[in-house]
Amino acid sequence: MADQLQLYSYWRSSAAFRVRIGLNLKGLVYETVPVHLLRDGGEQHADDYRELNPQELVPVLKHGERVLRQSVAILEYLDETWPTPPLLPVSGRDRQRVRALAQAVACDIHPLNNLRVLQYFDRTWNVPQPERDEWVRHWIVEGFSAIEATLNDHPATGVFCEGDIPGLADCCLIPQVYNARRFAVDMRQFPTIARIERACLALPAFDAARPEMQPDAPPAN
Amino acid sequence: MADQLQLYSYWRSSAAFRVRIGLNLKGLVYETVPVHLLRDGGEQHADDYRELNPQELVPVLKHGERVLRQSVAILEYLDETWPTPPLLPVSGRDRQRVRALAQAVACDIHPLNNLRVLQYFDRTWNVPQPERDEWVRHWIVEGFSAIEATLNDHPATGVFCEGDIPGLADCCLIPQVYNARRFAVDMRQFPTIARIERACLALPAFDAARPEMQPDAPPAN
Repeated sequence: MADQLQLYSYWRSSAAFRVRIGLNLKGLVYETVPVHLLRDGGEQHADDYRELNPQELVPVLKHGERVLRQSVAILEYLDETWPTPPLLPVSGRDRQRVRALAQAVACDIHPLNNLRVLQYFDRTWNVPQPERDEWVRHWIVEGFSAIEATLNDHPATGVFCEGDIPGLADCCLIPQVYNARRFAVDMRQFPTIARIERACLALPAFDAARPEMQPDAPPAN
Repeated sequence: MADQLQLYSYWRSSAAFRVRIGLNLKGLVYETVPVHLLRDGGEQHADDYRELNPQELVPVLKHGERVLRQSVAILEYLDETWPTPPLLPVSGRDRQRVRALAQAVACDIHPLNNLRVLQYFDRTWNVPQPERDEWVRHWIVEGFSAIEATLNDHPATGVFCEGDIPGLADCCLIPQVYNARRFAVDMRQFPTIARIERACLALPAFDAARPEMQPDAPPAN
């Protein structure tokens, strides 16, 4: 079907998690195509996947024959293609704020901590696991400290990052909080982020996007 | 003045370079406020700058009283506020492609190689300079290989990343090529990227945004 949506996803991928939230918020039905990032040296490096995405990263969203890459660019596409409910506010000033919050996660926290980076430390520099974990926590705490200050400092912060409708910033923030908890970051340092997380996870769109809810999640996780 | 533009910038910052290109492409006059990333332990960590940006990163663009953070979000703001000439194409499909190319740089290359990361390696892990430089080159080559394939693979690639008008993807790509050359990456591996770089630097908007042209660049660089 021309308008069929297929998400190439890995249950624990933070970037795929973002897109799952966006698809759910828009009420779009999609098929999950699992790409196992660890099996057989990583299915994202296989020839057929590299054809879909030369970056060898998940997610990819196929919309009919269109191959869409990069999670935040995919979320912008979803918002432009299916404008209701919106992922971005109306005014230029507010849109800038939301995009900046999203990018504070998507550019300045997550890329430093993803699988390929941790594999580099392990394989090329032989950095021991505890130091790799400390690295992960360092950038989450750095980034969340700034985001917490930004949220606390602004009257536009509401139930969610921007007002009372979940949007682009929440799509990026909540998967990062999942990673933070996975690496035992003490979220009590970030009460506003933790409050927004609770509000988000109470919504079916976020709950259904959680890693544990994915078809490729291991059963006993 | 209400509409005055002030760019908090460091001459060699890749993210500030992106915004300078965007401002120049839009024909906007702005004042450069230098933030020296190395002097006095880094002016981006000073109290007054942290108030502007809790992330302690450049750039920040002030538009009147508005404080705008995150380079790609700033470029989107410029495009929404001053739509001509456009930084993004018209159709949803094309906009997605351009944003994905921009984010392939802004999310997956540059954050791994910026100053604070290299300082972490030096100060926390004592990684020697040659290995740090090798790390920088590794992620540039990974990222550029994928971008080169994406550009070669698509009929929308023109004189610039998308057609014959420079846009958001070029704003991100050209500063990254500058970094690549600085770290002695052999750009002959990436002929399409190198060709687009030549086309861009022939334009005054890109030329005037180059690090060496900035008021805070050291004289004999």
